[in-house]
Amino acid sequence: MDGIPPIALDAMGGDNAPGEIVAGAVAAVRDHGVPVVLVGSPRTVSEALAVHDAAGEIPIVRAEEAIAMDEGALASLRRPRSSIAVACHLVRRGDASAVVSAGSTAGVVATGKLRLRAQQGVLRPAIAVPLPTRPHPTVLLDAGATADVKPETLVQFAHLGAAYAETALGLAAPRVGLLTIGGEAEKGNKLTKRAHELLAAAVPSLNFTGNVEGHDLLNGVVDVIVTDGFTGNIALKTMEGAVRYAFTELRETLESGHVARLAAALQRRRLRDLRKRLDPEVYGGAVLLGLNGTVVIAHGASTAKGVTAACVLAMNLARQGTVAHVGERIAAGHKHRRW
Amino acid sequence: MDGIPPIALDAMGGDNAPGEIVAGAVAAVRDHGVPVVLVGSPRTVSEALAVHDAAGEIPIVRAEEAIAMDEGALASLRRPRSSIAVACHLVRRGDASAVVSAGSTAGVVATGKLRLRAQQGVLRPAIAVPLPTRPHPTVLLDAGATADVKPETLVQFAHLGAAYAETALGLAAPRVGLLTIGGEAEKGNKLTKRAHELLAAAVPSLNFTGNVEGHDLLNGVVDVIVTDGFTGNIALKTMEGAVRYAFTELRETLESGHVARLAAALQRRRLRDLRKRLDPEVYGGAVLLGLNGTVVIAHGASTAKGVTAACVLAMNLARQGTVAHVGERIAAGHKHRRW
Repeated sequence: MDGIPPIALDAMGGDNAPGEIVAGAVAAVRDHGVPVVLVGSPRTVSEALAVHDAAGEIPIVRAEEAIAMDEGALASLRRPRSSIAVACHLVRRGDASAVVSAGSTAGVVATGKLRLRAQQGVLRPAIAVPLPTRPHPTVLLDAGATADVKPETLVQFAHLGAAYAETALGLAAPRVGLLTIGGEAEKGNKLTKRAHELLAAAVPSLNFTGNVEGHDLLNGVVDVIVTDGFTGNIALKTMEGAVRYAFTELRETLESGHVARLAAALQRRRLRDLRKRLDPEVYGGAVLLGLNGTVVIAHGASTAKGVTAACVLAMNLARQGTVAHVGERIAAGHKHRRW
Repeated sequence: MDGIPPIALDAMGGDNAPGEIVAGAVAAVRDHGVPVVLVGSPRTVSEALAVHDAAGEIPIVRAEEAIAMDEGALASLRRPRSSIAVACHLVRRGDASAVVSAGSTAGVVATGKLRLRAQQGVLRPAIAVPLPTRPHPTVLLDAGATADVKPETLVQFAHLGAAYAETALGLAAPRVGLLTIGGEAEKGNKLTKRAHELLAAAVPSLNFTGNVEGHDLLNGVVDVIVTDGFTGNIALKTMEGAVRYAFTELRETLESGHVARLAAALQRRRLRDLRKRLDPEVYGGAVLLGLNGTVVIAHGASTAKGVTAACVLAMNLARQGTVAHVGERIAAGHKHRRW
């Protein structure tokens, strides 16, 4: 422990709350030395802690309300004392280093915007998601925080993503690509054509390398892929769905017939390892960038493992000063901007 | 043969033109009884036909120019005698039933719009692509013809896609979904929120079943997925890239280590079969809908097999009267429209 404030973990958010959330918190504390406070209904959380003989081991901060998984942005206005709102409040007061929630993405984004506010100069927040490329992940943003954007907003997203890649992934001058529908500058829709011009004008403060397409998401050709929250969310879910589809088709193929079934048995462990590597839970979740505080959004279906990974990621981001670095980049972008 | 005019096949378009194109034409004629005329440079095409002892077997229509694979919409204006322009002209005059090209998508779309013109009442054309779902394909449109659209255009795309599913797939009342970023009507960006209202108002002339998301592309939950050409192109390429990625990762996994390599060998043929089923070449290509003539766009990298499949698809669409059926749906949509 280095005296840094704990992670404020939303104990009530997610399909498997509070059981898996609390289990993930226990592992974060015990196995990774990450300090955590659990935000939620004290009685429910205490009971879940008792399962791990951890009553009293992890502090609880009371929040009697929660935002349900099927609730969206409006719920965050209606419930100012929700667990996610209280977690944001702890960060705002300096009593926590970062927020982690597996709750509804729309609810977390809306509450984060309302309680933590956008950083100075930031037009709109963005969700950054690490894609499972090698040797290091590719950062896709925005994965769904802001559906309708201006070209200028995409330039800011590029700075947010670059700041994230620099701090979280330790990359120098990360290569930034604009997601669109053709390699040439003049390809795309109105939004991306104008954004391309603005991004090109932001070189060298941004290492903008040009347009990328849908098939570039997983080939590691750039370090940061910039897009609006509508397109990014569709691309991300399409990618997840296609990988799942390929595995299902493949399992059926591998296991039909006697010889093939035997072969599949021989490979089972390797297939499980691969599947694990492509599992969104392992890489710890998405990060909401552009607010006055670090917010990690774990997958809604997260089990304990995913929650622990999200807590570790949040603590790393807090330690590395990602929020401050985003602020520096945005300020520098303003100084150099030509729009 | 039923006296129907032949397919006008662009012999000069595609990465493997003219060799594979001509080989595909020969197979279409000989193996499938689909009449074809080859449009291109007579000398080059004759030489390619001679390889198959097919000189004189397939008519050639002269076109001395071609649109290169890296050229876009402007080239179609600059080269009014390109092979694809001449092929469109044949359809316009009634001397061909449909156009097939493996040329640059942007070039084919621009030339098709210019030479065949939009059908009466059609705001913008759309590219329909069959996705490899079971028991029958799901139609995604627009896959890239029109990047910037109005909500009204998406309603028309729904009619184009429904007409295609009814004729090409033989579906009654195909289920239509709107691609967006959340199941509820109020989720999405400005474009899809308004389009959702208009689509809901078009029931029952459209069997609109609501929003779908990126992970629904391959799960067969609807028969037609409607989106703008920007989003559709990114989703399609993301899907193709993710499937390819999953296979590559899988091959590495399956073939690392002695036992696993042995197992992989036992499964090789099955894996090849699966890969073939997911291969865009097998299902024959994309269809440009909304013009006064059937236009099939084969994959740019098509080999003979893909070209043959595209010719068979084009002939089926022509025989089934897809263009006329699209016209009826658009006319009916206008009668019922509330915008």
